[in-house]
Amino acid sequence: VGLPRFFAPHATESGATIDLPEEESTHVARVLRLAVGAHVRVFDGRGHEWDAMVHRVTRHTVAVTLQDEVIPRRESGVALTLAIAVLKGDKMDDIIRDAIMLGVIAVQPLVTMRTEVSAATVERSRRVERWRRVAVSSAKQCGRAVVPSILEATTLPSALDQNTLRVMLVEPAIGVTTRRLAELPAASAATLLVGPEGGWTPEEVERADGSGAILITLGSTTLRADAVPLVALTALRVRWDDF
Amino acid sequence: VGLPRFFAPHATESGATIDLPEEESTHVARVLRLAVGAHVRVFDGRGHEWDAMVHRVTRHTVAVTLQDEVIPRRESGVALTLAIAVLKGDKMDDIIRDAIMLGVIAVQPLVTMRTEVSAATVERSRRVERWRRVAVSSAKQCGRAVVPSILEATTLPSALDQNTLRVMLVEPAIGVTTRRLAELPAASAATLLVGPEGGWTPEEVERADGSGAILITLGSTTLRADAVPLVALTALRVRWDDF
Repeated sequence: VGLPRFFAPHATESGATIDLPEEESTHVARVLRLAVGAHVRVFDGRGHEWDAMVHRVTRHTVAVTLQDEVIPRRESGVALTLAIAVLKGDKMDDIIRDAIMLGVIAVQPLVTMRTEVSAATVERSRRVERWRRVAVSSAKQCGRAVVPSILEATTLPSALDQNTLRVMLVEPAIGVTTRRLAELPAASAATLLVGPEGGWTPEEVERADGSGAILITLGSTTLRADAVPLVALTALRVRWDDF
Repeated sequence: VGLPRFFAPHATESGATIDLPEEESTHVARVLRLAVGAHVRVFDGRGHEWDAMVHRVTRHTVAVTLQDEVIPRRESGVALTLAIAVLKGDKMDDIIRDAIMLGVIAVQPLVTMRTEVSAATVERSRRVERWRRVAVSSAKQCGRAVVPSILEATTLPSALDQNTLRVMLVEPAIGVTTRRLAELPAASAATLLVGPEGGWTPEEVERADGSGAILITLGSTTLRADAVPLVALTALRVRWDDF
């Protein structure tokens, strides 16, 4: 609807007046320079969204009054998690942004055998916090009322250890049985596992196979590393959800 | 196979000794510093590829002898053309690269009502020549033996004026009948039309609709402008070709 949207994880219900978080308050007061009475939208990151009005503007805090709850943007019918080997530098920011715009409900950063970034570096550089800010800004940008979870980095074995459908993207030449997209079972929830630029090790592929994950390829298609998750997520959405 | 690949549009048949184009010769002699007798691959950009051997290296020209013809990377079963409104700056380079890696056979740059780059600018800045170099380097990189055509920039009406299936990507709110991907007819050739960041004008959508093009959306998904063609091409490939 074109109204500016703000993220307020503590939003409660129509009629309530709540403080926006500091970053959002700054955005209201200093960047957009909205005054008391301005119309905005507020979402709680868990799928609720309201029409709202700026109620009070002080130096560090903006309070808004929640008005009618509105119907949020429809979420994808498949709860997709992207488990992806951490890429170097800022590349992960774009991947997380794209994945969120494509509707994932969570991103699980992975540290694999060939990941170029160590778990220690991920922790020390506070990447996860940074990615969480990217998640909020992406949700604001693309109109979702859900802010996807950015999970703490983990290893492949621990990412494989779950009950939902796990789909691992592998290179075609890997010498294990892969399935075509059309052969994937229907699913309401799934985790897509995408390896690092150097690929999965044969042991990692075996472990995933042995744990019941389904292996898929993108045929002989060779893509830029940054484009791989976008293409694979799109392929799964088309297979399951048809946008 | 890991052998360096070179583009030789004038390659003929096994047994022939041919000169590589100047840029490719420089790459052989100065960058890779290959000597006489080195094994390489040569492709003609029209789907043929050979094992080859460096035959002669002079200051500006490298000659290679074509040996056995090899089976080239399989092309997509659907001859897809991406007709895309020209984006500003270097963004088109990445889009063309990704599109080629996803298997398009041609890219048709479009100048639409809301395109921010004029036809005159496209011409004056020799963009098409630049994009053709991108096409060659992308084909080399992703292993295709076909170098997709980069057509001269044209207008929407002229891009619509053809007999193959035309699929126009539109915003969901546009108020015209769109089809779901699953409803697209089977096709062996198609043109995907993607508008500029500012979108198509209502007149452009009407014209496309009236000309028999099929209008599709990506549902309520909002993407970065650069990601739109990649996602839409992937969606069509999954629909028709399943990688």
